[in-house]
Amino acid sequence: MLPSEDAILVGEELQKRFGLPYWQFALTATDANRFSIRLARHITGRPKILVFNWCYHGTVDESFITLSGGIAKARRGNIGPPVDPAVTTSVVEFNDLAALETALKNEDVACVLAEPALTNVGIVLPEPGYHAARGTLMILDETHTICAGPGGYTRAENLEPDFLVFGKPIAGGVPGAAYGFTAEIAQCITDRQNLEDCDTGGIGGTLAGNALSLAAMRATLQKVLTQDAFDRMIPMAERWTEGVAKGIADFELPWTVTRLGCRAEYLFAPETPRNGTEAHDAMDFELERFMHLYAMNRGILLTPFHNIAMPSRDCWDRRFHQGNTKSQRRTGSTRPSAVEGNCRHQPLDVAGPSVQFGPSLRSRPFLCEPCGFKTFFATPTAILCNLRGYELSCCSPQISLCLCDSVVKSVAPRMVG
Amino acid sequence: MLPSEDAILVGEELQKRFGLPYWQFALTATDANRFSIRLARHITGRPKILVFNWCYHGTVDESFITLSGGIAKARRGNIGPPVDPAVTTSVVEFNDLAALETALKNEDVACVLAEPALTNVGIVLPEPGYHAARGTLMILDETHTICAGPGGYTRAENLEPDFLVFGKPIAGGVPGAAYGFTAEIAQCITDRQNLEDCDTGGIGGTLAGNALSLAAMRATLQKVLTQDAFDRMIPMAERWTEGVAKGIADFELPWTVTRLGCRAEYLFAPETPRNGTEAHDAMDFELERFMHLYAMNRGILLTPFHNIAMPSRDCWDRRFHQGNTKSQRRTGSTRPSAVEGNCRHQPLDVAGPSVQFGPSLRSRPFLCEPCGFKTFFATPTAILCNLRGYELSCCSPQISLCLCDSVVKSVAPRMVG
Repeated sequence: MLPSEDAILVGEELQKRFGLPYWQFALTATDANRFSIRLARHITGRPKILVFNWCYHGTVDESFITLSGGIAKARRGNIGPPVDPAVTTSVVEFNDLAALETALKNEDVACVLAEPALTNVGIVLPEPGYHAARGTLMILDETHTICAGPGGYTRAENLEPDFLVFGKPIAGGVPGAAYGFTAEIAQCITDRQNLEDCDTGGIGGTLAGNALSLAAMRATLQKVLTQDAFDRMIPMAERWTEGVAKGIADFELPWTVTRLGCRAEYLFAPETPRNGTEAHDAMDFELERFMHLYAMNRGILLTPFHNIAMPSRDCWDRRFHQGNTKSQRRTGSTRPSAVEGNCRHQPLDVAGPSVQFGPSLRSRPFLCEPCGFKTFFATPTAILCNLRGYELSCCSPQISLCLCDSVVKSVAPRMVG
Repeated sequence: MLPSEDAILVGEELQKRFGLPYWQFALTATDANRFSIRLARHITGRPKILVFNWCYHGTVDESFITLSGGIAKARRGNIGPPVDPAVTTSVVEFNDLAALETALKNEDVACVLAEPALTNVGIVLPEPGYHAARGTLMILDETHTICAGPGGYTRAENLEPDFLVFGKPIAGGVPGAAYGFTAEIAQCITDRQNLEDCDTGGIGGTLAGNALSLAAMRATLQKVLTQDAFDRMIPMAERWTEGVAKGIADFELPWTVTRLGCRAEYLFAPETPRNGTEAHDAMDFELERFMHLYAMNRGILLTPFHNIAMPSRDCWDRRFHQGNTKSQRRTGSTRPSAVEGNCRHQPLDVAGPSVQFGPSLRSRPFLCEPCGFKTFFATPTAILCNLRGYELSCCSPQISLCLCDSVVKSVAPRMVG
């Protein structure tokens, strides 16, 4: 409701990274998408948005739509949608330039809402020049594709979106999100602004841009999501990808592995998917669950859905293979602390409270030998774990981007006041 | 994404307060409303929701609708809505039982989404028995009406909603929200659940229920929003209301003042409004802005919209009028630290950074004499201010419920680890 000085610093940092001059804050990437979509419809006067088949944009109502035999329908499992999403949304296959151009010809699409690469159906990379096609406003949702580098896929590939959304890891586990736009968009908004209606338009929220979120964003941008971190993480993801590809080849599995920056995923299909349908058809829910359970029983916590792998900037480094970690120095351990291509987690010997995950799993605390107690991840549970003095799967290929203790160190002293 | 132990403790506390057995977490009351609405449509198979004219439910798309000459239309200022809200939403005047029953007769309404009393158009109280009318599911949004007491208006008046939403102050300024429902609703959800679709239904979010939000909720419920706090705040709001009513009478103003628990508002109409239209017609945007600016220039920060007054549990107490505050003891000051019916703020003598509010206002830090540096409010800026060692309008009738330093004291040590 009231801005803090960090809003200025975070805004300036986002300007530098993504090249867009104007920024607003929200609490979630979903909200940042929702507000950008509203503005795009407001500016263009057009009623629809366009998304790609098997896209992911949080819980944006308009995005729960898939193509089934060429017909756009509510996505399976869409719980009580407000309207048939075909009313609000056009949907085309990713990398199908002809279909995209045809859909935009109707001139009823206010914006394309896109991840630069599909991420949540496994990774599907765009073909060269695909995002150059225009004919409406473009919102790029970089929430997952920030794995491409400090400026996301947008900066890595010099894309020029009208809006850019960045949430989830932006505040390192503390809720927060941002959306930026061009000077032209800002002028269109200003031209249509009415002071008296400023609280009633369906955009914003009391705690959007709150001081804690912004302090966490500032710390994350300054100390975690840095060029230096990506310079270490990306080569590690390359190593992981090579290792998985070798495993697939060695066992002659009909699988493939795709990498985007510091994130990689294997998929149960022999060819790299070109679009959402190909990627979705390659998913195998039961096999995923089996593999996740298998890993969990060995102390590796994977993402709950599909197979995201993302190294922490503080782990997976060859240095850690030399018995050079704090915990090893502390314990005098000489055994290798990480296996090639992944880290090994050791249940702590010390007594600590266990944690309930879901209805059936109670986890014992883990010590990550490579990290000691030093690594935080973007999962809030990991933060909690650390706050309480124990660690969970801190360098497993678990979840989006890492949150270093630097975030907590930056925020916490102010909270103690 | 992963629950913490606080989820259990917070869930149990919410059970006790509101009488509903099942609870889920979200980051905002908007999301808690959105998810409850989705579930209601999912369970009933009905397409619409019903809201009251000039309702407030955050940025829920379906709620931006008003009656204009009896016709339901998009609310003025609704920025780029996804569809005409008349497609998704029925709207009737508050306290119009006949209109409500007529609207529900069509059997196309999945749920009534209601604040037990209207709050964001000034306060409009329900007439006795109004919420007893049924014929569909009822979602009560207690985000603002929690001012009625520790169990909100629901518990104070023994209402029996199917869903209950509580956001904003629930975590004392840290983003967080919760929604609860009955055992019958839980069974309906379970009956319709499909494991494989559990990530794709439009409900939930990566950081919903994150450990920091839940730690803040736990501290807020255990140490701030207590019966003891309400026992002190409500009499203070009564005093404030009596004082304002006396002022209105003394100056023969055609105004009225309405109180709900520890919150009160004056309105520029001679009669207490019975519905949203009457309340909205009594608003005067220019007069509000003038009064807010007048107060601001004297060190009192009001809410940005209309005239919410809500005493902090730690202020406005007669004890503070006896020169018995810490700051007074510290300084030996004997001057009265609060004027009757409100507190006085003194610009700090110490040098401190100033803060920019909006394009034109730069505020100097304030010392609240009654509170010293002890009171926090639900505004995140106030938290930041305190973190940096200065205070803003900490006991002015500024903003929703107070956040005591106990929240920060509970959370911060864990963050320092």
